[in-house]
Amino acid sequence: MNFTNPFLNGDGDDKLHEECGVFGIIGAPDAAAACALGLHALQHRGQEAVGITSFDGAEFYTRRGLGHVADNFSSAESIAELPGHMAGGHVRYSTTGGSGMRNVQPLYADLASGGFAVAHNGNISNAMRLKQELVSKGAIFQSTSDTEVIIHLVATSRYPTMLDKLTDALRMVEGAYALVVMTPRGMAACRDPMGIRPLVMGRLGDAVVFASETVALDVIGAEFTRQVDPGEFVEVDFDGTIRSHRPFGDTPARPCIFEHVYFSRPDSIFNKRSVYESRKNIGMELAREMPCDADLVVPVPDSGVPAAIGYAQESGLPFELGIIRSHYVGRTFIQPSDSARHAGVKRKHNANRKIVEGKRIVLIDDSIVRGTTSLKIVQMMRDAGAKEVHFRVASPPTGHGCYYGVDTPERSKLLAGRMDLAAMREFIQADSLAFVSIDGLYRAVGLAGRDKACPQYCDACFTGEYPTPLTDLANRKDREAQLSLPVNEDA
Amino acid sequence: MNFTNPFLNGDGDDKLHEECGVFGIIGAPDAAAACALGLHALQHRGQEAVGITSFDGAEFYTRRGLGHVADNFSSAESIAELPGHMAGGHVRYSTTGGSGMRNVQPLYADLASGGFAVAHNGNISNAMRLKQELVSKGAIFQSTSDTEVIIHLVATSRYPTMLDKLTDALRMVEGAYALVVMTPRGMAACRDPMGIRPLVMGRLGDAVVFASETVALDVIGAEFTRQVDPGEFVEVDFDGTIRSHRPFGDTPARPCIFEHVYFSRPDSIFNKRSVYESRKNIGMELAREMPCDADLVVPVPDSGVPAAIGYAQESGLPFELGIIRSHYVGRTFIQPSDSARHAGVKRKHNANRKIVEGKRIVLIDDSIVRGTTSLKIVQMMRDAGAKEVHFRVASPPTGHGCYYGVDTPERSKLLAGRMDLAAMREFIQADSLAFVSIDGLYRAVGLAGRDKACPQYCDACFTGEYPTPLTDLANRKDREAQLSLPVNEDA
Amino acid sequence: MNFTNPFLNGDGDDKLHEECGVFGIIGAPDAAAACALGLHALQHRGQEAVGITSFDGAEFYTRRGLGHVADNFSSAESIAELPGHMAGGHVRYSTTGGSGMRNVQPLYADLASGGFAVAHNGNISNAMRLKQELVSKGAIFQSTSDTEVIIHLVATSRYPTMLDKLTDALRMVEGAYALVVMTPRGMAACRDPMGIRPLVMGRLGDAVVFASETVALDVIGAEFTRQVDPGEFVEVDFDGTIRSHRPFGDTPARPCIFEHVYFSRPDSIFNKRSVYESRKNIGMELAREMPCDADLVVPVPDSGVPAAIGYAQESGLPFELGIIRSHYVGRTFIQPSDSARHAGVKRKHNANRKIVEGKRIVLIDDSIVRGTTSLKIVQMMRDAGAKEVHFRVASPPTGHGCYYGVDTPERSKLLAGRMDLAAMREFIQADSLAFVSIDGLYRAVGLAGRDKACPQYCDACFTGEYPTPLTDLANRKDREAQLSLPVNEDA
Amino acid sequence: MNFTNPFLNGDGDDKLHEECGVFGIIGAPDAAAACALGLHALQHRGQEAVGITSFDGAEFYTRRGLGHVADNFSSAESIAELPGHMAGGHVRYSTTGGSGMRNVQPLYADLASGGFAVAHNGNISNAMRLKQELVSKGAIFQSTSDTEVIIHLVATSRYPTMLDKLTDALRMVEGAYALVVMTPRGMAACRDPMGIRPLVMGRLGDAVVFASETVALDVIGAEFTRQVDPGEFVEVDFDGTIRSHRPFGDTPARPCIFEHVYFSRPDSIFNKRSVYESRKNIGMELAREMPCDADLVVPVPDSGVPAAIGYAQESGLPFELGIIRSHYVGRTFIQPSDSARHAGVKRKHNANRKIVEGKRIVLIDDSIVRGTTSLKIVQMMRDAGAKEVHFRVASPPTGHGCYYGVDTPERSKLLAGRMDLAAMREFIQADSLAFVSIDGLYRAVGLAGRDKACPQYCDACFTGEYPTPLTDLANRKDREAQLSLPVNEDA
Repeated sequence: MNFTNPFLNGDGDDKLHEECGVFGIIGAPDAAAACALGLHALQHRGQEAVGITSFDGAEFYTRRGLGHVADNFSSAESIAELPGHMAGGHVRYSTTGGSGMRNVQPLYADLASGGFAVAHNGNISNAMRLKQELVSKGAIFQSTSDTEVIIHLVATSRYPTMLDKLTDALRMVEGAYALVVMTPRGMAACRDPMGIRPLVMGRLGDAVVFASETVALDVIGAEFTRQVDPGEFVEVDFDGTIRSHRPFGDTPARPCIFEHVYFSRPDSIFNKRSVYESRKNIGMELAREMPCDADLVVPVPDSGVPAAIGYAQESGLPFELGIIRSHYVGRTFIQPSDSARHAGVKRKHNANRKIVEGKRIVLIDDSIVRGTTSLKIVQMMRDAGAKEVHFRVASPPTGHGCYYGVDTPERSKLLAGRMDLAAMREFIQADSLAFVSIDGLYRAVGLAGRDKACPQYCDACFTGEYPTPLTDLANRKDREAQLSLPVNEDA
Repeated sequence: MNFTNPFLNGDGDDKLHEECGVFGIIGAPDAAAACALGLHALQHRGQEAVGITSFDGAEFYTRRGLGHVADNFSSAESIAELPGHMAGGHVRYSTTGGSGMRNVQPLYADLASGGFAVAHNGNISNAMRLKQELVSKGAIFQSTSDTEVIIHLVATSRYPTMLDKLTDALRMVEGAYALVVMTPRGMAACRDPMGIRPLVMGRLGDAVVFASETVALDVIGAEFTRQVDPGEFVEVDFDGTIRSHRPFGDTPARPCIFEHVYFSRPDSIFNKRSVYESRKNIGMELAREMPCDADLVVPVPDSGVPAAIGYAQESGLPFELGIIRSHYVGRTFIQPSDSARHAGVKRKHNANRKIVEGKRIVLIDDSIVRGTTSLKIVQMMRDAGAKEVHFRVASPPTGHGCYYGVDTPERSKLLAGRMDLAAMREFIQADSLAFVSIDGLYRAVGLAGRDKACPQYCDACFTGEYPTPLTDLANRKDREAQLSLPVNEDA
Repeated sequence: MNFTNPFLNGDGDDKLHEECGVFGIIGAPDAAAACALGLHALQHRGQEAVGITSFDGAEFYTRRGLGHVADNFSSAESIAELPGHMAGGHVRYSTTGGSGMRNVQPLYADLASGGFAVAHNGNISNAMRLKQELVSKGAIFQSTSDTEVIIHLVATSRYPTMLDKLTDALRMVEGAYALVVMTPRGMAACRDPMGIRPLVMGRLGDAVVFASETVALDVIGAEFTRQVDPGEFVEVDFDGTIRSHRPFGDTPARPCIFEHVYFSRPDSIFNKRSVYESRKNIGMELAREMPCDADLVVPVPDSGVPAAIGYAQESGLPFELGIIRSHYVGRTFIQPSDSARHAGVKRKHNANRKIVEGKRIVLIDDSIVRGTTSLKIVQMMRDAGAKEVHFRVASPPTGHGCYYGVDTPERSKLLAGRMDLAAMREFIQADSLAFVSIDGLYRAVGLAGRDKACPQYCDACFTGEYPTPLTDLANRKDREAQLSLPVNEDA
Repeated sequence: MNFTNPFLNGDGDDKLHEECGVFGIIGAPDAAAACALGLHALQHRGQEAVGITSFDGAEFYTRRGLGHVADNFSSAESIAELPGHMAGGHVRYSTTGGSGMRNVQPLYADLASGGFAVAHNGNISNAMRLKQELVSKGAIFQSTSDTEVIIHLVATSRYPTMLDKLTDALRMVEGAYALVVMTPRGMAACRDPMGIRPLVMGRLGDAVVFASETVALDVIGAEFTRQVDPGEFVEVDFDGTIRSHRPFGDTPARPCIFEHVYFSRPDSIFNKRSVYESRKNIGMELAREMPCDADLVVPVPDSGVPAAIGYAQESGLPFELGIIRSHYVGRTFIQPSDSARHAGVKRKHNANRKIVEGKRIVLIDDSIVRGTTSLKIVQMMRDAGAKEVHFRVASPPTGHGCYYGVDTPERSKLLAGRMDLAAMREFIQADSLAFVSIDGLYRAVGLAGRDKACPQYCDACFTGEYPTPLTDLANRKDREAQLSLPVNEDA
């Protein structure tokens, strides 16, 4: 079986990828089934592997698998292996570490204080350094996942309570994390001090639910209560008691703005705003900032659709499906050798020739990463007879890597990392190319603009301003410098 | 592996289903790879099984599998098992007969005249009677597929040439068929006298290509030449010679109008018209025939989108994604017992609450079959705060079964087969419900209206006027009548 | 899963192979479970594939699989798929035809007279000619098995009753067959006029049982009644009525003498004699005919053990396990390149060095086919320090192919087909080599000697005297002669 | 797939089971292939799981699987995953810990000092206590195997060199172990101070080989050098340097005497003696100690065969295969309900009726554990017509559990743990029953008799005299005593 991400194969995909989704529920008689359904709604956040751990008051049970949630948790048998009123789960794209089954979360350990399971969305940017220290003291790691560092820090903490141990551990950790933790005492959900990765909270009857996005609450019929705040630890006991802690005091929040641009589902609420409306707003900003004399607005489906609707409404141009997306993308295909050049992209996207033939079109996509797909889409429009192709992008140029749990190519492979606007336009062979401005993006999410002194979001992929130190990266560059090797800026 | 149709699980699907897609190519060095890619583009026509047969000048090779094309034909090894310059394939929903591997097409037999492989889209409505006659003469059937009847009729035909044998066989056959046939002499493509099921023809360099839809030509970069005409047999030799025959003379064509409504992909050209434009036109007709005082037009994605764009453009109401569709539908899930009633449909569709809250919405879907999904969608809109929900359907009421290769529920399960308009509206709990008229539908596909004396399309699912006799059905009703059993009208 | 025959891999095996075992039971409430157990006891007759068909009074059910009985029929689920009081099954080595699942027996067809299932041990030596005739009349074959010819002959027979149709069919057939047939009316067991392949009959309470060997009766606790006689058709109805027919009149029997030598299990009764005793007797004849001045008698385990016990008892030499056989032979292994030459054979057989060191040994094996294993075993004994190695074979030289359902190499690969005794001894590098005489073999099975005019057994593999015409072989040689190709004598 | 031990299913097996075999090779270009072949020859020591770890000078590679060696390591691909000149492997029956893949050895860890892999035959009898201490200091265990304790003790040792760390770790360990250890510096093999479990050493060209038994050397063509002595640590570097250490000084050896009785293959050399000869000797001792007036000696195959040959030779009674063993035991079968009672045992063993009918037989088996199989075998002989059945056992009564890596039932299930001789005879329904004496057993292995003051072997299963403390067992009994629960003597 082919377990690879169907969206990453061939040229059909050229996106940044959120690397994980987490879900937890406590106090529900069918916790594992709810968890499976919730993770299914988060499938877009990670398609490579999935795991669920449950607790029935006495034992922890774990089931992991490669592939999609539906490939692994659709049967009654699979759910019956996970008894109990508490369950937590994880979908995974790839993140730090290889792809073996032992890296599939939730990770679990029997500590002296009892069982401990954790599901983690994010990335710890000093994990290598912490691991070296732990191994030198005799710790044995079973995975290559950065998340296991957290478990070892908890296991070796001298503090008495689990909350104190966890706080002690997380104080040593730098980077981004949204955690769902299970112990025999209950569930805890934690978000890093800047809240880089999302985490929300809901209710389903007496049960308390945590999830990366509100759509996971919707699918199980839970009510969205509020987000877990940046730097907040929420503890939930089996009797339903909820306690909130802020062990790191108050620091300014910097949630990931790319959740609005692409990562979250449009029907989610992120940072108190509708993602769909944010995307439509970006399209409207783009129409105002970068208008275009054309006949049609055509989205690159599906991620470009909300911005294209916004662009069309603001510009008054008709919105048309000039590109049709297949529901059956599947994996890399053997290509017939003498077929047209673009069979790869055509498996996913096909021109709606009758619509675009002879027309001047505004193509709307959410972002440009390597630019390879954009080039092929522009070419496909021209092959279908489009007279002019104007490319409008619903985010600023993506010129910097992300170290907070997002799969980004090396800077040298990012189109905006190696070219200016004119060169990018030339590369994708569009008649014109324009991006929304960084301030336009901030306006679209309801702010007056970007606060340069203290940005309201993490926007490092656009600006290169990272909100945390990047210890492992710095160490690697030091080592490479000593070895006189060329240092790659953003790998 | 997922052997079941992901779209048919649970309540997330309530559609008529086209039951097959066929593809053939002759004269290409990598025929099997082109065939796999072409079938992939036809995946929406059948998700249950797939098969490809190739011929290398000496031997026929066949590979079959359950599930999607990408599950079975993505590897170089799978394609390498299918050498030769001629290949034909089939994707299958279910059609007549059980689901065993032996029913997966292309069917193949060693006849006295040599190898014979056939892929069939359609349904033979006197297959049972023909099979009884053949078995009584000593024929042994290896599948329960109606298509095997054709092979036995060819095998026992006394005519000398393959073309004559095939014509002889098809003269005995009643119903719908679009066939791709392979013999050691070359490829033949045949369409039944009324052309009920689609079949088109294209060119890729020196190779000749046949496919159920033009999108399968697009994906391999082939040029669309023309459709195979109703009643036409096209023979292609290995030297590229093409011969056209019309063994049944001229009969009026009756292609399936539901290809415009739902079956074909919007980017296909069917019966010389853009399917996307037909659907937009239906939406416009609907806006004219059944206007509505509302705030938003919301499509039931994805099949309702083109009609919704048409409705929005004609009515001037804004088009908004009030429902978000998941890309990861997967199979039936174990449901948490105390979750909201509608988790099933929510896995596929989720309300975009911020958009529909407090609004009067026009919901656009392509058709209503059982009505169960429609009810849940309406309820989902109300749960998300919609003030009014007006349901508009881009086809007339579907009140009759199809016997030409489409999976239809029994008439007693078709909403329009058991209720009038008022009852249907009550059933789905919409504030209003309206369907496009049958004449509106004919206008949308470019005609002045339906010609009652000689309808230009097969529209039996709407009108109950079947263009062929239905021998097996009549025989079954006779038998049931003799046994004094109640006869189900349309099962 | 192990699809290959573990005994055929590498050099560890150099035997003739019985190609099938059949089993049938009628009148038992758990027919399929008894059938699985019976086939398991016949596993040595065919390890490549297994199938069981059952009948519950209304429907036939079939389950097939590659590999061993235990791999496919150990679970309650697998047996539950096969309801009913009648079941028949088959284990298969390879026989005529490729290895696809469609060749796995029982074969089944829906005839005009109802369902018809057949399991066949043997080989039809005019199958190709019969198939050509059937195909030219329009028959379509689904397998490449010779057994399917019988089904088509039954299907096209003009006789009224099933017994008459089957007799009609078998009259056209030449070669060897032991058949278990199931129809909605009951079970029939047939053995070819000379009874080349074995078939016995037993009782388990009210149920009637048929099997290739008596061990299959033992394992289910059934009582051995008698053998099915050569040329006999036994019919058993669901009410327990048994009818015996002899449609071909009386012909002299010629059962396969190799069943005594190697094919049957030693605890079976074949042709009214204990196979174990026959083998011990052969060893005793060999000791008398070919005595040897040595220290020890060492069997090549396991098949050489009974003859070695006989040889030791008759000669007074001690019987010792000088070779130890592994229970875990498994499949071909990747060999370390610089290991000793004989790792292949050592996986199966290992010298018991302490026993053979410095000794003069008599090695006893049941037969020599290609001689490759014999050579390695002799070498292994010498490497372990044996002073002299005298090879004694408990059958005459095997110089001719078998066309009656036994897998034999081409004559040019049979050691005795290409060498005389002195050359054979030289080839296997033994100090002496001797075979039992053909008359000694006949004496060991209780006869005065071989009746040259009318041999009491089929011994064609030793004598080249085939008891039936070999039509397909003759046709092939004719064709090859016309093409001036060299003709292989016995392929 | 069924991964359970085919020999333990149903009643067909009633044996003590050696729980592991180990193999290691260093200095061979195709180390992993040799390792697979060696483990295959040790398959009888563990059928449940298998693993191999190799090292190519830079990286360690591991491949594990459930089932047999041949199921997991027969392909070139599987071996190609394990490059390098050093490889070590393990076959596993079950031993301490559950059956998950994470318990399959070799276990591996990245320590601060580099990679560390270990394969272990034996059992650590204070593993629970050591694990508690390690976990309380923050160690995280990934398996439930007692072997992991050794790794954590090495990881946390303060000594500088790997040899010192390992010695430090093993000083804390109590029980039985034969270890093959791999580090980036080379291979080490260690045997516990009393040498309870076996370990031998050999040469294959320049390569050094370690294995549980000499048959694993034979199969790869290696020369048997000597055994690893009790308490010896042998280090082998990549340059071929071999160093021997005895960190525990000299203690009297106590190797497991049951290796002679049943565990080792008859063609192995254990404790400097031929196992086959030991078994024949036991049979001879038994014939002298417990003669019998009978007609035949019949072994319970295969393990009873050598002792039966000895008994026959000493007594002058003929040796005959009165029981035939199937090569295809497979797993538990669904039994037909009304079949004879003994179908289970009959799948493995079948009476050779013609041989035993009307005869007085001496049945020879190697040991009696629960007695359930013995009862069935005796009954099978009577059903086949034996006039008298005298049971002779080639070991003393097995009345005590083993805690050194052997799977033993609770004492209450051992026939000799709950009955005296007369009751045992009554239970198995033999006409007479006798066991070899403990001194007879010691004589058979070449000693004057058992030295009561200082026994030359571990014979605790016969005598209850355990050569080491049993800390975990004692702790468990203490706990159970405090809870006033009944304590099972030997569980």
